Amino acid sequence: VNPQEGCRVRIEILGQEYVIKGTDPPEYIEMLAKSVSQKMEQINRQHPSYTQTKVAVLVALQLADELSKIREDYEKIIEELKVLDKIHKSS
Amino acid sequence: VNPQEGCRVRIEILGQEYVIKGTDPPEYIEMLAKSVSQKMEQINRQHPSYTQTKVAVLVALQLADELSKIREDYEKIIEELKVLDKIHKSS
Repeated sequence: VNPQEGCRVRIEILGQEYVIKGTDPPEYIEMLAKSVSQKMEQINRQHPSYTQTKVAVLVALQLADELSKIREDYEKIIEELKVLDKIHKSS
Repeated sequence: VNPQEGCRVRIEILGQEYVIKGTDPPEYIEMLAKSVSQKMEQINRQHPSYTQTKVAVLVALQLADELSKIREDYEKIIEELKVLDKIHKSS
C-alpha cells in the first residue's frame, strides 16, 4: 500500500459491505464504521418497520445535528480564546 | 404547537418524505435536511449506480468523519483555553 494513495478498507454496515478508500488509517475508518453501524442498529431496533435507507438518512440527520452544534460551540470557544489571549498579552 | 413538546417538521430527502419530531426550531431541522440532501445528491451524481441506502450510509460516514475530527480539535482547544486561563490567573 502506497501511503500517499491511501488504502482500501472493507467495512460492513447493516449487512452490506462497503469498500472505503482514504488516506486515514484503517483503524480510524473501522472506528467510524462501527459508530455509524451502532447508531443504525439502535434506530433499527426502535423502528423495525423502517427501511434501511430511512434508517441511514435518520443517522445522517442525527450526525449533521451533532456536527452543527459542536461547530457552533467550537466557534464560540475560538472567540473566547482570542479574548483570553488579548487579556494575557495586555497584562 | 406546545413548545415543550416540540413540533413536527416535514422534510424531503432524495424524493422520500420524513417527519421529524424535535425541540429544535423547524428552520434548524430544515437546514440540516438541506445539508444532508445536498451531500446525498452529490454522491448520487458521482455514483449513479449506488443504491439510496449506500448513498445515505456514505453520507453518514462522511459526517461521522467530520464530527470525529472537529471533536478532536475541540478537545485540544479546551486544553489550550485551560492553559491560557491559568497563565492569566497567575500573572
